[in-house]
Amino acid sequence: MAATTSKSNPAQIAHHPAAKFRAGGFAPIDDALAIEEPLEIRLAGRRFTLTMRTPGNDEELAAGFLLAEGFIANAEELGEIRRVRDSKGALEPNAIDVILNVKAEGLRARLKRNFTISSSCGVCGKTSIDAITQRITPIASRAKVMAATILALGAKLRDVQKVFAATGGLHACGLFNLEGQLLAAREDIGRHNAVDKIAGWALANAMLPLSKSLMMVSGRLSFEIVQKAAAAGVPILLAVSAPSSLAVELADETGITLVGFLRDASFNVYTHRARIT
Amino acid sequence: MAATTSKSNPAQIAHHPAAKFRAGGFAPIDDALAIEEPLEIRLAGRRFTLTMRTPGNDEELAAGFLLAEGFIANAEELGEIRRVRDSKGALEPNAIDVILNVKAEGLRARLKRNFTISSSCGVCGKTSIDAITQRITPIASRAKVMAATILALGAKLRDVQKVFAATGGLHACGLFNLEGQLLAAREDIGRHNAVDKIAGWALANAMLPLSKSLMMVSGRLSFEIVQKAAAAGVPILLAVSAPSSLAVELADETGITLVGFLRDASFNVYTHRARIT
Repeated sequence: MAATTSKSNPAQIAHHPAAKFRAGGFAPIDDALAIEEPLEIRLAGRRFTLTMRTPGNDEELAAGFLLAEGFIANAEELGEIRRVRDSKGALEPNAIDVILNVKAEGLRARLKRNFTISSSCGVCGKTSIDAITQRITPIASRAKVMAATILALGAKLRDVQKVFAATGGLHACGLFNLEGQLLAAREDIGRHNAVDKIAGWALANAMLPLSKSLMMVSGRLSFEIVQKAAAAGVPILLAVSAPSSLAVELADETGITLVGFLRDASFNVYTHRARIT
Repeated sequence: MAATTSKSNPAQIAHHPAAKFRAGGFAPIDDALAIEEPLEIRLAGRRFTLTMRTPGNDEELAAGFLLAEGFIANAEELGEIRRVRDSKGALEPNAIDVILNVKAEGLRARLKRNFTISSSCGVCGKTSIDAITQRITPIASRAKVMAATILALGAKLRDVQKVFAATGGLHACGLFNLEGQLLAAREDIGRHNAVDKIAGWALANAMLPLSKSLMMVSGRLSFEIVQKAAAAGVPILLAVSAPSSLAVELADETGITLVGFLRDASFNVYTHRARIT
């Protein structure tokens, strides 16, 4: 299977005139900016959420978001994703409607569970972790990966960061198999969106859980990114930069091997090191 | 006035054992991680939002968030911020309660306005910008800053990034006067939180609108960051890295001078360049 990368249509880059100050004076430049636009995700016609994203692969974004939030568990429950049309029949580029294939009763329970955090013991990292672990299956994957394979991932992800190279303004998420072969990559102004798009792509291709794959993100690793990886069943999650304290705790609890500060010659392993040989 | 930086109490760093892979083998290390914990912001006792943040300066975070979202316009409307106690009287470290000094009717109108985006013309960057410009005063500041002053800001912000230096895991926001003197700096795992904390600090110190100051953020510049700066009346906004397309458009509409790719020897100006001399 050839690796899939972010769609270049619709446009992900906008050109804007700017002035560069250097060596005591201004010079005009034509700067390439990463496009940021809102996306309204609807559930059966009603607005569910609004997120700022880079256009493209919107169906994947919606599917991955709903998977991470626990509203769907697989492609069957996803039902159907429709583009939205305005009153004149023209396509709305920034709205998408999801018809879930989940019984109303089950959906209400999921909504309630998602927005309830135990008030008896206060809000803390532990309650946030509990809220996630109550609805996802712990990662039991016996996947193994060689350290040398990990060291080679950074260069591979950079190779496919087309829009980042042009704008300096995008995050990326890449999915690799255990031999380090790139399966898919997505770029977005939001790191969480890039991860959602990868998870949504895997869901659409019936690849969940991703128990034999590596997920890598540019930049840092927060609680939210680990939550999304866990919901997709990813056993090994890697980042170019630092993880947060709660990202490490959630990875530990859910059984994810967490790698940070992944550079060309070294990396740090925070949890479940046994998967790295 | 001496510059104020992020509180080091409560702790912002957690130590976690990790293994560093380098030159063919693993070695144990004790890694310092930036702390990420949830904060529940309540309005008069009812949960309003939950955000992941680095603990410290929570009152500023709540105040800055409410300012940016248009719920309050000044310190008087903020009313009172209370720490929350559990049933045994112990302080909840991750919850904060805000009692607004806004009439119920006015508050309902603000809530409605915030969550309404015109459905007649679809969702797009323009409607997002309209939603912001309908509730903030355009920046009319006649502030001027020298290019040489701007070039010196990066080193000053890095000097005060204490937790970033230890963990590599935090974003920063710094506020400077027009001579480039640091007034305040905050660090947080979320760039938007760091900006909220600075705006909340300024609000608490009766400094709004910040019409004679420069705001600088680490990393990239999104629509949301420009929205927060505009709500605080900041005339000149600067970032180490790239702005998004919508960040530039919103800065243009609200009258903010937007600077990106600020390095020690150069920077790019995208909008309202006349303020830079």
